[in-house]
Parts: sequence; structure tokens; C-alpha cells
Amino acid sequence: MKIREAVLTPVAFADAPLLNAMGVHEPFALRSVLQLVCEDGVVGLGESYGDSGFLDQARKVVPLLAGHDVFDLPGLRRKVAEALGGAVFVDEHGLTGGFSSGKTIASVYSLFEVAMLDAQGHALGRPVADLLGGKARDEVEFSAYLFYKFGGHLGAEHDAWGEVTTPEALVGEAKRMIDEYGFTAIKLKAGVFEPAQEVEGIRALADAFPGHPLRIDPNGAWRVETAKKVARDLDGVLEYLEDPTPGIEGMAEVAKHASMPLATNMCVIRFDDVEPAFRQRAVGIVLSDHHFWGGLRDTQALSVLCRTFDVGLSMHSNSHLGISLAAMVHVAAATPHLSYACDTHWPWKTEDVVVPGALVFRDGKVAVPQGPGLGVELDPDALARLHEQYVRCGQTKRDDVTYMRRFTGTFDPNTARW
Amino acid sequence: MKIREAVLTPVAFADAPLLNAMGVHEPFALRSVLQLVCEDGVVGLGESYGDSGFLDQARKVVPLLAGHDVFDLPGLRRKVAEALGGAVFVDEHGLTGGFSSGKTIASVYSLFEVAMLDAQGHALGRPVADLLGGKARDEVEFSAYLFYKFGGHLGAEHDAWGEVTTPEALVGEAKRMIDEYGFTAIKLKAGVFEPAQEVEGIRALADAFPGHPLRIDPNGAWRVETAKKVARDLDGVLEYLEDPTPGIEGMAEVAKHASMPLATNMCVIRFDDVEPAFRQRAVGIVLSDHHFWGGLRDTQALSVLCRTFDVGLSMHSNSHLGISLAAMVHVAAATPHLSYACDTHWPWKTEDVVVPGALVFRDGKVAVPQGPGLGVELDPDALARLHEQYVRCGQTKRDDVTYMRRFTGTFDPNTARW
Ligand SMILES: [Mg+2]
Ligand SMILES: [Mg+2]
Repeated sequence: MKIREAVLTPVAFADAPLLNAMGVHEPFALRSVLQLVCEDGVVGLGESYGDSGFLDQARKVVPLLAGHDVFDLPGLRRKVAEALGGAVFVDEHGLTGGFSSGKTIASVYSLFEVAMLDAQGHALGRPVADLLGGKARDEVEFSAYLFYKFGGHLGAEHDAWGEVTTPEALVGEAKRMIDEYGFTAIKLKAGVFEPAQEVEGIRALADAFPGHPLRIDPNGAWRVETAKKVARDLDGVLEYLEDPTPGIEGMAEVAKHASMPLATNMCVIRFDDVEPAFRQRAVGIVLSDHHFWGGLRDTQALSVLCRTFDVGLSMHSNSHLGISLAAMVHVAAATPHLSYACDTHWPWKTEDVVVPGALVFRDGKVAVPQGPGLGVELDPDALARLHEQYVRCGQTKRDDVTYMRRFTGTFDPNTARW
Repeated sequence: MKIREAVLTPVAFADAPLLNAMGVHEPFALRSVLQLVCEDGVVGLGESYGDSGFLDQARKVVPLLAGHDVFDLPGLRRKVAEALGGAVFVDEHGLTGGFSSGKTIASVYSLFEVAMLDAQGHALGRPVADLLGGKARDEVEFSAYLFYKFGGHLGAEHDAWGEVTTPEALVGEAKRMIDEYGFTAIKLKAGVFEPAQEVEGIRALADAFPGHPLRIDPNGAWRVETAKKVARDLDGVLEYLEDPTPGIEGMAEVAKHASMPLATNMCVIRFDDVEPAFRQRAVGIVLSDHHFWGGLRDTQALSVLCRTFDVGLSMHSNSHLGISLAAMVHVAAATPHLSYACDTHWPWKTEDVVVPGALVFRDGKVAVPQGPGLGVELDPDALARLHEQYVRCGQTKRDDVTYMRRFTGTFDPNTARW
């Protein structure tokens, strides 16, 4: 089945002022929505980053796809590599590790791969999970994703979540999120305050939610010695400790002294990182993300690498819409080794481009959509609305640092700050 | 699409008296042929070992498949593991490394996985290569597989290949095989004679076929020091040196001193072997084999492990029929990293169970069959004939050692003999 046309639409959706080591989320999160219009009326959907740097690269591929067979994934990879040359997309927020031409190719390829798999599924009448080897589970578990946050955006009222900076407020945020979604595992995005304050936050969560697996992720905001101290302080409290410090060497040093496994979506972000990280036993868990690991099939390949080296696998999340959640659910369902609850920013999102109903959280889990392909349907009105919002808002890239400076006057990213 | 019935048929096909470190091939090679009869008249085909030890395990799974969905590969894996318990299939010929319950599960799973993928392909109207991510190449290259051999079986006339024990006869065997099939790469099964004699054989091939990549595989017949000496003697002559000595440690020691990469289908034979072998840099090339690596999808997963650790990938062969050749071609075509010519025993085979024509060697390559699934069709008369031959011949397992003793009086396997 051949592709007739690829249509790539940048969109913006409202986001909350969530804090992290790089600053604070802007009023809108950007995404790109891909429609692969194929023969026989099939349309394959994909979703990825909406930063202009990413769009510039993805747009090089768009005009090359007319006539491409949706089953020819190796041909897609060749086309992407050729179209991009050695171009490097740098995401300014810097929360997913380094940049390289290889990671750029993997990221752009992923957008189109997901849409081709969706189209395949529609053509064949099978869910994408079946094209990935079949469902190892019918539901995929997600974790609550807690953020410290400002009460509201610049010049705006407080949002419904309010300000969250204290242990008490964190527990309140968690309670609300768990009540609504049923999450068991809880992750705290850290790297915002002094480590001692964030350790206090985790302790408050441990007290309030006994038995709930807890994770903390400061995005490399700590130096090695600090990370070791936090690991000692939270011995017996954490399920895993995520990117406490930057780089494979630093992580390896922390891992030697930490009782809990270290997880990462920052120092193992492409296949080239696997050998050095695994040789040094730097990480116990890799947080996969099909958006930059080269799509759904390569995410599964990563799972085999992890399983073989006795490294765990969980899943990283950026702010995303329903197409990406569906893709995450399908690949997670078809990946037996993925045995930790996955991350998702879903609760922070109030707008979407897909028709509601296909993706429902129950007990913190999302059942694999039953329909063919990804099992989600694009809402053309919603797409138009979010695209208009993209045009209107004027944001063209994610830049948490600059937005943070508008709140605080001066701010530098907290990378290895403490 | 559900399976109605699984039918497993052992067959025997005529084989030549080919020599190796464990003795000599018996008059018949045994295989098992699987038919998965599904709804809608679809039949999925699989092929694997025919030894009674393997059949005993595979037969535990056969009655469990009625009602199983052909897309539910994770469910198949669970069923196989449960049905087998901790059973271990030991192939008596000992040419593919150690035995374990894990390898047994992987082997039995593979037989059924291939047939389920064939059934999926028929149901969807797509070739198996498309279900494995799409074709990275349209044709798969194979190597000439040279053997030293007796002129004929016990009590029989010489076969058309005649006796091959000298360098001259080896060159003649190679010439005939290359003339007929167009192979470029040439592999010599060694471990039969003194290493110096086999080195002489390789030198004769190098002289007769300049520019043809050469490989030698003594199946671990040499000790470490001997292997190092052969590596020195054949410096600049070999494409790769296959299993010169047994075990990961021995291979690692040889690898340190060899100028050419070491290949293996004996010391890295399951995912558990990968970490120790790669950590020690024991091998430069893994010879995949879907029959014991857990099927076509796990063979692709192995390819990612190899690519990630900068280890090459080629493909091992046992004596096999057309169903297995088709499976090998599909997975090789859909596995970009597999960049060496694959092994095949095909030229030694005079009988088959598939309708001729789908698999044609041209310039040493086999084009991926065009039809849905594996693209080969079972010939029911041929299957009946080869099954009758299986019953009549009385062989129930491969035992090259005992058959060799009938030629030589006394014989012990050549494992680490020299
Ligand atoms: Mg993270
Ligand atoms: Mg071998």
C-alpha cells in the first residue's frame, strides 16, 4: 500500500507551569501531528516534537514519501538519513541528553515509522501491537508524574492545581492525581529545590502512600557526591533513582554506592550509549522513548539489549497528546521486558487532537485500544484548533530557561548545581 | 485468526557422508515439518530438528494450540515454557554449543513462531519479511559450504561428489558448487584432519578462488595455542575464523591474537551468552540461527545486540529443507545488520517437502519469495514420501559419532583434540 501524501501539522496545547531543572514549562507545549494519506483511504497517524528545529528536519522528509510503500520501513530509514544528511536537531530544553545526527535521524524516523505502522494496521485490520509481535499484556501501567509548580502562568490566574512547592502540597497533588487516575507508582520531577527539600518531599509521599513505588528525577541536577548522599538518605524508600547526575561516568560512580537501581533517559539515549553504559554498569534501568529511540520497533530492540544485560526497562515521557499515548501503549504492551509503570504527562493536559474515548486510565492503566492500527482517530476540528493556537501563541521551540527568567529575573539551569 | 490444529510430521531426507569434528553425516538427515491449520483455510508452515529428543518436547506443545490466535506470539512463548517445564533437549551431535532449558524453549518456540508468522502473512496477504519490519534487501547472499567427505555411505556406491580429503578435491568440490550456484564466499567445515592439512586446504582455495571471502570452521577442534597458530598461518587469507576453540574464555584468548574476526555458533548460542562474550570481546561475528535463537523476531533482536556492540552477524545452517530456507531468507532480508553471506547446506540436499520454484539460487543469492507468508507451498506427496522414509530408515536422532565408528573402528570427537 503506497503513501499518497504526508501532511505535517504543528500544534500547541495548553500546559501548566511545571518546574524542572531547566526552568518552567511555558503556557503551551508544542507537538507535530503527522497524517500519512495512503491508497484505499487509509490514513496513518504520527506525533512528535513541535519545536521548529525538529519540524525543519521532519519537513525534509515529507515531500519524499509520495509513492513510498507503508511496509518499507528500511527504505524509510534510508530516505530519512539521506534527507537529513548530518543535520543535528538540538532541543533547547536539554532534558533528554545529548544531540547528534544519529539521534536526529532516529527522532525523525520515529515520527514516520509510527504513522506507517498505524497505516499498516489499518490496511491489515490489526492493532499495531500485533505488528510488534503481539500483546504480552492487555493493559499498560503508568505512574503518577508529580511536579513542583508555580500557581499559574505569568499574568494568569492560578490553575486548578495551584502552587506546589511544599511537601504538603506535593502530597495533595499526588492525592488528586491518584484519586482521578488510580496510579500506583509515583514519580517526582526534582532538580528544582535544594536536594534536602526534595528528599523531604519524597519522605512525605512515602508516608502518605505506603506501598506505592516512588521515583525521583532531578534531571542531572546533582553532583556525584550529592547524588550518593541522596541515595543513602532514600535507601529503602525509592523504587529507582532517575538521572541524579549527568553523564555515564558520574552515573557509574553513583551506581556503585546506591542501594536502589539508577534509571536514565539522559545518559543512555541512543544505541551508541549502550555499550559504554552497560560495560560500566552505570544504569539499572533504561527509560525508553520511541520518539528518540528510533520508533516502536527499535524500542523493542532496546528492550532485548536491556533484558540481555539484566538491565530494567521503563518508559520516559515528554508532554504529549493521544497519538503518542496510543503508540506508547501499543509498544509497551508488545514488549514483555517493560515491567515498570511508564511515565506520562497525560494528567497535565487539557486538550487533544484525537477523538476522546479510546484511551482510558483505570487503576493507573490504559488498555490497548481494540481497533486497527493505533486505535485512535484524529478529530479534524481539534487539530485545526490546536494548529491555530500554535500560530497564535508564537512559540516555536520549548525554552523553559528563558520563561523561568521572566519569573525570577536571573536563572541558570540547575545541571549539576548541587 | 485462530489455529484449529497443529500437525507435526517427522521426515528424513537423503544426506551425504559429510565429515566434521563429531564424525560423519548419516545416510539421512532428520527434520520436523509443522502445519498449523487455521481458520479460513490458512495453513502456516514451520520446520525444525527431527531428533526424537526435540520431537518429544515439540509434541508437548502441539495439543495446546487449538484455539490459539496466530498473532499471540507472547502467549505462545508462555505456553511453550509451561509445557516444557525445565526440560532440556540435548542434540547428540553437539555442534551448536551447550544445552539448557532456555535454549530448549527457544528452539521449540521457534518452530511454532515461524509457522504463526507464515499464517499471519497468509491471512494478511503480506510476505513474512514485511511482518519483520520490511525488506532491507531483495536478495540474500549465501556461502558455498564445503565439506571433507567420504566417497559414499557404508555399503553404498560413491555419490556424485566422490571422496574429498585432499586440497585438490576440495577445490574441485568448490568449483562444482560455485559453477552451479554462483556462490562468492566459501566456507570449509574443518576439524576433521590435522590443522596443517586443513590450512593447506584453505590455501588451495585461496589460490583457486582469488577474491572469494574464505572461512574455516573446525567446530572447536583446536586448543587455544593451535587456534592462535592457525590464525597466524591464515593471516590475510580468511574473512573470518569460526569456532576455532571451545568456550568463551578460549575464544577470547584467541581473539586477542587473531588478525581476523572470530565467528561463533557454539559459544554464543542464547541471550545469556551475549553479556559474558561481549564483555570479554570473545567474538567478532555471531552466527545467528532462528532454530535455536528463539525464532525470527529474536534473531532480529540478536542483530541489534550485535550492531550495538559493533559485533558482526552472519547465519549458521544445519541440514535443512525449503521451509527453513524460506524462513532464513525472510529474516535475513529484514535484518539490515546481517551483512555477511549466510551459511546453507542446500547444495547437499536432493529431496524436499516444498513445491520447487520459489527458492532459486542465482549468483549465490536467493530472492525473497514474492507470495504471502514464507512464500513456499508444501507438497503433500513429498511430505508423505519423506515421512515414510523417516519411518523406514529407523534413525531417531543425529549421531555422527557412532556412524563414524562404523567406518573407522574407533573414533572420538575431535573437540579440542589438536
Ligand atoms: Mg527523566
Ligand atoms: Mg559453525
